[in-house]
Amino acid sequence: MKAIIVKHPGGAEQLQVAEQPKPEIKSDELLINVKAAAVNRTDILSREGQSAYMTNPILGIEVAGVVEASGNGTEDKNGMRVTGLVNSGGYAEYAVMPADRAMEIPEHLSFEEAVAIPEVFLTAYQTLFWLGNLSKDETVLIHAGGSGVGTAAIQLAKQLTNAKVITTAGSEEKLQFCRSLGADVGINYKEQHFDVEVMKATNNQGVDLVLDFIGASYWEKNLNSINVDGRWILIGVLGGAVIENVNLMDIMSKRIKLIGTLLTPRSDDYKAALSKDFETKAMPLFEREQLKPVIDHVFSPGEAQQAHEHMESNKNIGKIVLKMDD
Amino acid sequence: MKAIIVKHPGGAEQLQVAEQPKPEIKSDELLINVKAAAVNRTDILSREGQSAYMTNPILGIEVAGVVEASGNGTEDKNGMRVTGLVNSGGYAEYAVMPADRAMEIPEHLSFEEAVAIPEVFLTAYQTLFWLGNLSKDETVLIHAGGSGVGTAAIQLAKQLTNAKVITTAGSEEKLQFCRSLGADVGINYKEQHFDVEVMKATNNQGVDLVLDFIGASYWEKNLNSINVDGRWILIGVLGGAVIENVNLMDIMSKRIKLIGTLLTPRSDDYKAALSKDFETKAMPLFEREQLKPVIDHVFSPGEAQQAHEHMESNKNIGKIVLKMDD
Repeated sequence: MKAIIVKHPGGAEQLQVAEQPKPEIKSDELLINVKAAAVNRTDILSREGQSAYMTNPILGIEVAGVVEASGNGTEDKNGMRVTGLVNSGGYAEYAVMPADRAMEIPEHLSFEEAVAIPEVFLTAYQTLFWLGNLSKDETVLIHAGGSGVGTAAIQLAKQLTNAKVITTAGSEEKLQFCRSLGADVGINYKEQHFDVEVMKATNNQGVDLVLDFIGASYWEKNLNSINVDGRWILIGVLGGAVIENVNLMDIMSKRIKLIGTLLTPRSDDYKAALSKDFETKAMPLFEREQLKPVIDHVFSPGEAQQAHEHMESNKNIGKIVLKMDD
Repeated sequence: MKAIIVKHPGGAEQLQVAEQPKPEIKSDELLINVKAAAVNRTDILSREGQSAYMTNPILGIEVAGVVEASGNGTEDKNGMRVTGLVNSGGYAEYAVMPADRAMEIPEHLSFEEAVAIPEVFLTAYQTLFWLGNLSKDETVLIHAGGSGVGTAAIQLAKQLTNAKVITTAGSEEKLQFCRSLGADVGINYKEQHFDVEVMKATNNQGVDLVLDFIGASYWEKNLNSINVDGRWILIGVLGGAVIENVNLMDIMSKRIKLIGTLLTPRSDDYKAALSKDFETKAMPLFEREQLKPVIDHVFSPGEAQQAHEHMESNKNIGKIVLKMDD
């Protein structure tokens, strides 16, 4: 089968289309005829050889496609259109998916739209609700509002709780798009001090939940922005990982819960339970078009290098997709 | 009435016995004829003028005594022997206690024993169970095992969950005492690297929960000692508050939950709910002598200065008590 592999750990130029053996499934797995795969930051880390859990020369952790074969220990789902997380090997004609993670694709969604759901919506869902316990009378600060997880989190927060959503982004175009998804307050972090704006927007209370993809460079301002008993979910370090001075009294006196998380290295059981909960509570909202996948650009397999470079330039709003049956 | 007040913010020499007006109660409060008060670190901060929530010249946040009057909006508890948290004014002949925090004292306990319960056992209970979600197959690392909260936490962890308890302390005497309370592993932090010993004692898995009273000076070793998905409750900074160079990737890759907390500034409702839950689940274990208050030394009111100096010297094992009816 055709697949996109990494020749040697390194830059985007290391990606190439190559012939690979068609994978075999175990009894609790599905073989997916992949129609679309999506690009994630974790793929870039894997490409660079920085990921400890990369076990497959084929990149990619989420796919949408048609079930071609179902393991003999699982329900026969042959022919079903599904999307979901795979452990690796997503950028390929065929991929293996644990059966208990497959989510059926709502009828009106294309494969390119469906593949824009799993990683970012599951991450946002896990972060907002499983870890952040967001409830409807609360306020959430979502950084990188134009990113894949950001656009998913804005929609989920509004549609599942009607919490007040404050978001940051680096351009007016991104902020307008965030508002169209339901954000109540948009802050341009290049032109304003986001902590000052957050305090204005919350009657000086601060927010109950912070979704932090940025890390070090936002540390002080996040501390200033969070309310007493606030939850602060750390899911990325785009602004650096190392903070020079942390005062633990700040964390104690505000009774902050700082929670680190990464979705990709979690266990199969965790991913299955998260997928199931999401499928029950959030997938119906895609059917009713209250939630929508956000696609920035669709590339062909031969354009994988451009797809990675596009993500690395941070200019995308929403997901970058590879249409595998091109 | 007789009370111990702070003349001016400063050292232990600022404490003096003085005549003060007998307090008046509101409809939801009890007037307690105080038989014993306990000394806490927060009293030292208040004495030094470092506490933002000190509103009373009389120190003290926990008492045991007899109810002398019950507010007209609450059940008549006159004559009942009770112990519990007060908002201030504990070092006195009479103190005011919100009625919904009063816990009845088991018959066989003296007032000096009973006053050794509220602050440290409620803090330990809140930290282990409300914030730390400790369960029976897990392992907890309790620092400062000889401290008031440490001795309470060791007992509660063993008696309510049978989790594996690893504790640190600075002398063999303290460690022996910790073992007598139920600790499975005792580590002398002055003679051993506690993180190395923790890994030995947990089959290189690390602990599921850390009770951290120490802060900065233990930061790296706590990071080394904690398991993936571990909870880390920060309740004191005896080893400093400021850490240089925190790498947020450590928190993300181990999916750590770092939770800051302080009990004293929490709301009345929180303290009432915590006291109620503790009274239901843990007080019966004092009646059956599965839990025991740990008293280091009982001082008379005229010895308040020595009592504070004794706490500041860090030599106590368990609680320092003032017997107020001396």
